[in-house]
Amino acid sequence: MAAAFAILTQHVASEIALVDVAEDRLKGEMMDLQHGLSFLRNVRVNASTDYAITAGSRICVITAGARQLEGESRLNLVQRNVDILKHIVPKLVHHSPDTILLVVSNPGKFLTVDILTFVAWKLSGLPKNRVIGSGTNLDSSRFRFLMSERMHIAPSSCHGWIIGEHGDTSVPVWSGVNIAGVKLSDLNPKIGCADDPENFAALHKEVVESAYNIIKYKGYTSWAIGTSVSVLCNAILSNQHSCYAVSTLINGHHGIDKDVFLSLPCVLGENGVNFIVRQNLSDSEKNQLKKSADTMDKVQEGIKW
Amino acid sequence: MAAAFAILTQHVASEIALVDVAEDRLKGEMMDLQHGLSFLRNVRVNASTDYAITAGSRICVITAGARQLEGESRLNLVQRNVDILKHIVPKLVHHSPDTILLVVSNPGKFLTVDILTFVAWKLSGLPKNRVIGSGTNLDSSRFRFLMSERMHIAPSSCHGWIIGEHGDTSVPVWSGVNIAGVKLSDLNPKIGCADDPENFAALHKEVVESAYNIIKYKGYTSWAIGTSVSVLCNAILSNQHSCYAVSTLINGHHGIDKDVFLSLPCVLGENGVNFIVRQNLSDSEKNQLKKSADTMDKVQEGIKW
Amino acid sequence: MAAAFAILTQHVASEIALVDVAEDRLKGEMMDLQHGLSFLRNVRVNASTDYAITAGSRICVITAGARQLEGESRLNLVQRNVDILKHIVPKLVHHSPDTILLVVSNPGKFLTVDILTFVAWKLSGLPKNRVIGSGTNLDSSRFRFLMSERMHIAPSSCHGWIIGEHGDTSVPVWSGVNIAGVKLSDLNPKIGCADDPENFAALHKEVVESAYNIIKYKGYTSWAIGTSVSVLCNAILSNQHSCYAVSTLINGHHGIDKDVFLSLPCVLGENGVNFIVRQNLSDSEKNQLKKSADTMDKVQEGIKW
Amino acid sequence: MAAAFAILTQHVASEIALVDVAEDRLKGEMMDLQHGLSFLRNVRVNASTDYAITAGSRICVITAGARQLEGESRLNLVQRNVDILKHIVPKLVHHSPDTILLVVSNPGKFLTVDILTFVAWKLSGLPKNRVIGSGTNLDSSRFRFLMSERMHIAPSSCHGWIIGEHGDTSVPVWSGVNIAGVKLSDLNPKIGCADDPENFAALHKEVVESAYNIIKYKGYTSWAIGTSVSVLCNAILSNQHSCYAVSTLINGHHGIDKDVFLSLPCVLGENGVNFIVRQNLSDSEKNQLKKSADTMDKVQEGIKW
Repeated sequence: MAAAFAILTQHVASEIALVDVAEDRLKGEMMDLQHGLSFLRNVRVNASTDYAITAGSRICVITAGARQLEGESRLNLVQRNVDILKHIVPKLVHHSPDTILLVVSNPGKFLTVDILTFVAWKLSGLPKNRVIGSGTNLDSSRFRFLMSERMHIAPSSCHGWIIGEHGDTSVPVWSGVNIAGVKLSDLNPKIGCADDPENFAALHKEVVESAYNIIKYKGYTSWAIGTSVSVLCNAILSNQHSCYAVSTLINGHHGIDKDVFLSLPCVLGENGVNFIVRQNLSDSEKNQLKKSADTMDKVQEGIKW
Repeated sequence: MAAAFAILTQHVASEIALVDVAEDRLKGEMMDLQHGLSFLRNVRVNASTDYAITAGSRICVITAGARQLEGESRLNLVQRNVDILKHIVPKLVHHSPDTILLVVSNPGKFLTVDILTFVAWKLSGLPKNRVIGSGTNLDSSRFRFLMSERMHIAPSSCHGWIIGEHGDTSVPVWSGVNIAGVKLSDLNPKIGCADDPENFAALHKEVVESAYNIIKYKGYTSWAIGTSVSVLCNAILSNQHSCYAVSTLINGHHGIDKDVFLSLPCVLGENGVNFIVRQNLSDSEKNQLKKSADTMDKVQEGIKW
Repeated sequence: MAAAFAILTQHVASEIALVDVAEDRLKGEMMDLQHGLSFLRNVRVNASTDYAITAGSRICVITAGARQLEGESRLNLVQRNVDILKHIVPKLVHHSPDTILLVVSNPGKFLTVDILTFVAWKLSGLPKNRVIGSGTNLDSSRFRFLMSERMHIAPSSCHGWIIGEHGDTSVPVWSGVNIAGVKLSDLNPKIGCADDPENFAALHKEVVESAYNIIKYKGYTSWAIGTSVSVLCNAILSNQHSCYAVSTLINGHHGIDKDVFLSLPCVLGENGVNFIVRQNLSDSEKNQLKKSADTMDKVQEGIKW
Repeated sequence: MAAAFAILTQHVASEIALVDVAEDRLKGEMMDLQHGLSFLRNVRVNASTDYAITAGSRICVITAGARQLEGESRLNLVQRNVDILKHIVPKLVHHSPDTILLVVSNPGKFLTVDILTFVAWKLSGLPKNRVIGSGTNLDSSRFRFLMSERMHIAPSSCHGWIIGEHGDTSVPVWSGVNIAGVKLSDLNPKIGCADDPENFAALHKEVVESAYNIIKYKGYTSWAIGTSVSVLCNAILSNQHSCYAVSTLINGHHGIDKDVFLSLPCVLGENGVNFIVRQNLSDSEKNQLKKSADTMDKVQEGIKW
């Protein structure tokens, strides 16, 4: 809902269709969005339990997902989420065969958006450029905000990229952290290392802990991921060719030879991922990606389609 | 929070300070807003249980309020809310003596935002133009949306004003309902009456029921009131002189001689209410306003300051 | 160019193609627009003397037109402009068969945008809803601004509609002038009449003289018409269903039975004019429209196709 | 005027005052801006030959300047421009003692905005952080656009900084050119050098030639510099702390010990330049800056105050 609201207030789309199983709640949310339209640009806001209302969508944003039950095995959690997506993805693609899928669902540390993006891709039959996970765009944004607090510079002028798997094992690319093209690693070669006098690693740690802390404090995350989704939709809908860290099929990149989705800087346009920006990663960074890829591949092998 | 998020995504303010007693939740909300800033304009977002962080605010938006307990008398409900505002308003005005108060708190049908705006005004010592209630700006927006659905015209091109007390006893000014300056009452003189062949009164009924329905469906209202607040803040902060239906001290207007706050079309600028637009109300409309004013005045007399 | 710049700075389109015969000037304007893109959303800006670059346009804005030479007869002026449009319109429609034409060309008091919109419609073979003239949207905006200065209320809260032929013989619909639904004619029944104590007719006179004055002062008009075009394009491209006074085929409206284009309040969407809002015009207003229509029809009869 | 129009369409300011000696033209421009306001947010647009209307401005943008006459000596050109600024700057500062001056005037290759920013600073008596030249923000934007065409990536995702003197002797900082934090110099170590296989130096050459070409093609530059000014005003007025290459007093930076203004990446906020971002420049880059500084200092020594 935060994503829908951001899309409305930022005039990103001229039509929004909400689908959910909870019919009442859905109706309430639809009405609440509609009642603000006289102060915004006119947007057609529809809601239904029937996927037919999504027909002809240029983007389908998937936020559905099941959280881990107490004591539930990882395999079971994955399978439950696969079963949910089996009910959603084919219907979306049926009604919008040329759509782009943007997967945001992120059940938590044992099952990230990346695996679910892979699942959505498999279930959709869409070409790889048309299936995207919200990935580390949010992690990167959190990193830039924390960096901005340290530097007293606007977050939009703080450049840093977090790639790989969303969450705990995400990879900050220290070599790319810069202000106005000035690499922080040129000023502080040990940036991000254990013996970094400025302890920049703490920034990444704070990024990782952010989600847990916000969930602890308010129960869920909403505003930042909503803004991230709105920004990605805008890049796609207005064919921006701008660059964001999103989860994409990375087979063939950085020595990974498996069908897994991980975040890398991608240039986004009306066809989804135009291309992946090739980064010069260190061996350690590549290893972290590879480790994530291996773990995810193993989980993916256990899925019953 | 929806208001804060709309203010952020619509670039209405360059600084936002959140105050609440629930420290953890507050911190979570602050972090969640901050983490999206790299995709927006830079805004300083602070949060604290200490009102000192609000110092120098040009607008203070008050959303705090207590809902009716089961079996609670109206008088008791009012007094509890007055006691809450006693803890808030003087501190806000102490830290921002030249502020504008925008009261949004609306505990429900037995105690509307209008009475609480009166209370805030009394407690603040501010001139009347600097204390505003969100009032029927939301009711008017709901009306325009419903009208737009009937007419197949954008809500922003559908003009209709609901005035008076926010909620059940609000007054639709049928004579002012128009599209492109074409009065609907010229086409349908019985508009809004019991024997109106187009049954426009149903539209107003739907406006009144909207809040109850949304609360029934999703538990609370957020997006539309958030958008309304963002729009009012923008009108004030950028000194727009644009016209909105907000709750203002109406002593001396439409034959009312009591210190009560009700919504009338107001021109808003950097000093709050510049002036009230004088409407030609029918006797029946004036009577409805008067009735609301009398009831509210009686409630207000019972308040222990 | 002001229209192109407004479209860019207001993020109305994601692609703009400029066509002109003056190749050098065109290249200079294109580069100058492109060089600001790093501060805006990415928009593809192309320019060429070849209409092929316009292929697939959702809207084609036509601003070309020849001004009256000294001593030139009206008929000759018209024919010269028809000959110009003969070179433009068929090529535009050839490359974008589903486009909407927005005619802005307005050679002056002896040949208004309205006749040229008729010409463009005839040359295009497009359905009537897909050919629009910028018409009195600008006159209406000027009126609202002058009204706002008198009232000390934002122009966007001042409602007034000027219809008919763009320029000298435009028709202010006094019955529709209102603030917050309050008709000024209810407060001042003589509004717009010769014996109006507030002399509102002077406002309309100022609107008519505005164009001449601006041309006298700075040589041409640009910013306001550019803003008007940007707003109309936005309404169409994002399928707003919002209401603007634009030049449309009015055969069958207000007793006119000729194929002429005049401005009336139109609801605009992705297919151009969705429908015309039916106004209750006075006999005098209808007569003014009819007189314009008759004059224009006579001019149109003399055109050699 | 392009700057004023961009400020209006992008809702950067709520009040604009235009001052010029050409009273008629000024009136025409003011009216033309005002007539579009009904489609924008309400902004008070005033114009006068009297500087009193600028009283209380938070930013004063100076665009006045005299171009070189045929055969005119550099010294004479400088002195003529100083004499113009003597008529402007003290009046601006008199009416807005706490203002920020943004100098845009740029008479051409023999007298750049940088020297005039120095002159404005001297004449104003304002602290150095409150006097800024539009500098190489435009050159940087042109560079990013040309880079974006090569890379097929949005200009806003193409990062490159041009510093130093605006125009012919500007300095591209090749080490900072990057996409998503990936330094192009890591992929192509010879970037910008004479033997660069990708001939990136041609990009900078095109930046330098851009201004001359646009002037040749259309007579003047307007849209890109207008957008640049609007962006800088927005950074200042909403206290963004974002980073732009603007002309600032660089005594003490990069080994320069003279009072000259050159562009470096600056963090801008409500007090103008918050601080300069320290870049690791190569010796050759430092030498280019020093050479510019020396030449400018010599010119400045000849000024009669």
